Amino acid sequence: MWVGFDIGGTKLAIAVGDAEGRIAARRRRPIAARGDPRADVDAMIADARALLAEAGVAADSLRGVGVAVPGPIDPVRGTVESPPNLAGWKSVPLADWFREAFDVPVHLENDANAAALAEWRFGAGQGARHLIYLTMSTGVGGGLVLDGRLYRGAGGAGEVGHMPVEWDGELCGCGRRGCLEAYVGGRCWTARLQRETPDGSRVAALAGGAARAKPEHVVAAAREGDAFALAELDRWNDYLARGLVALAFVFDPDVFVLGTIAAAAGDELCLEPLRRRLVENVWPVIANHIEIRAASLGEDAPYLAGLSAALESAMR
Amino acid sequence: MWVGFDIGGTKLAIAVGDAEGRIAARRRRPIAARGDPRADVDAMIADARALLAEAGVAADSLRGVGVAVPGPIDPVRGTVESPPNLAGWKSVPLADWFREAFDVPVHLENDANAAALAEWRFGAGQGARHLIYLTMSTGVGGGLVLDGRLYRGAGGAGEVGHMPVEWDGELCGCGRRGCLEAYVGGRCWTARLQRETPDGSRVAALAGGAARAKPEHVVAAAREGDAFALAELDRWNDYLARGLVALAFVFDPDVFVLGTIAAAAGDELCLEPLRRRLVENVWPVIANHIEIRAASLGEDAPYLAGLSAALESAMR
Repeated sequence: MWVGFDIGGTKLAIAVGDAEGRIAARRRRPIAARGDPRADVDAMIADARALLAEAGVAADSLRGVGVAVPGPIDPVRGTVESPPNLAGWKSVPLADWFREAFDVPVHLENDANAAALAEWRFGAGQGARHLIYLTMSTGVGGGLVLDGRLYRGAGGAGEVGHMPVEWDGELCGCGRRGCLEAYVGGRCWTARLQRETPDGSRVAALAGGAARAKPEHVVAAAREGDAFALAELDRWNDYLARGLVALAFVFDPDVFVLGTIAAAAGDELCLEPLRRRLVENVWPVIANHIEIRAASLGEDAPYLAGLSAALESAMR
Repeated sequence: MWVGFDIGGTKLAIAVGDAEGRIAARRRRPIAARGDPRADVDAMIADARALLAEAGVAADSLRGVGVAVPGPIDPVRGTVESPPNLAGWKSVPLADWFREAFDVPVHLENDANAAALAEWRFGAGQGARHLIYLTMSTGVGGGLVLDGRLYRGAGGAGEVGHMPVEWDGELCGCGRRGCLEAYVGGRCWTARLQRETPDGSRVAALAGGAARAKPEHVVAAAREGDAFALAELDRWNDYLARGLVALAFVFDPDVFVLGTIAAAAGDELCLEPLRRRLVENVWPVIANHIEIRAASLGEDAPYLAGLSAALESAMR
């Protein structure tokens, strides 16, 4: 059995499960950083011990621990550099502390990489030899499974959200201009929607005011046929397609798996328009065999991301 | 020992060599397609037999044959689909014919992939774990060595010359618009130069007329400080940098190795300006460790590309 942690934007998810992704016990709680990393980690260890007891897993049948964490991490030293949601954390030797507590191999993984592995092992990308995963959440992270294993490059590979799609274009959260994320990342798109949504529009009505418009309201209004919402989604698909076109020529993958916003928008509003754009803009020899799928793990995603990170501890 | 063939734009290069890239015998001749693929291949086989005899290699010490060939190939069936320089070739079972002749494993490789492998094994990329090679020749082909082995995707990976760098931009030879190759490929750049070079300019003088201007004349004029040539190279570096920026975020590689035109332009006119643009446009955690190097195999490149393809026959 394996223990996986997923340090999310606001919540911590912990799971005990097996190599087939069967979750024996799970727990989710708000991330409560006390400003003391050692105390934070001790609380995580206590949670995991409680889960192991709940699942009836003896200490000697635990094979590894994994942690999916927002970058940056130092995979060699096993340290978490400074996750945005954990106040006071800086170069925390998470791998060492978990190894001392559980006496098993520990693996830290960038959260987008862990999510890509989870979709590849257990979700929409099962059986793919070459899978490109895009988180499509507040930011646009990426995970690359190539020839059946995660590709990390020198440590920071897969930052597909920062490929330029419009040179010197709109400002991205990273401080650069024209990144894919500046157009299709949830945070950047929300800022645009709150500026551009017309008062009195269907999107504004669903959001309780134009200044509160979010991607979910655009998706809902588009389902009702609202013109502003459809135009916004069209623009979003256009920019996302620019990224997928570049990635298709570079990787010739089997499948793109798209997360949060794309999964919520679904086939008609997002995946089909993307498939059309791919075929229009990429040579048939490449475009014809590439599938575009929505991430399929839903509520289980953080637990399986943590477990997938844990399974990597046996790959070293 | 190994035999490698490189089917180039106008010439065929054949080499007999070892796994360390030491060439024992070599031959280069014009590509003479007789319209009869079987006769063409028999001539290649006769050439190789003569080279093996010249190098004193007994038939039983030959370990494999490799062919670097302009795509498309079918790597599974071992067929060459329709190389542009071989009239009458269509789905030629090259691997089968060579296997019958030499009774050893035969491997066909896309020419950009074979060149990438050659630079990685024997040239500017030796020792790199993650290498991105760009041909920078008449077209812009790419070869990706990731985690120490060639990545082919579903067969067509590495077409980095067709990443969009200006959406709906200039027309590319492939029929699409805005491809990297449309801006920095030798064929496309030459067409632009022959349109844009001012009569009476230094580039026109070196070329014997503006309508004959080529990249090599721009490089020569730029060395003399000519303003038009420097502006053209600046533009060329700008667009190439767009491609390298995208690839840096995606791959976080150890090294970019750049071929023909970049190698000819050299450090001051090309590699240094590219390094500056990479540092300006990519996060320091990625940009700071990436090296940009010129391909270093020079005249030996086609022979070593063929031998590198041959060495892959042992990797299957």
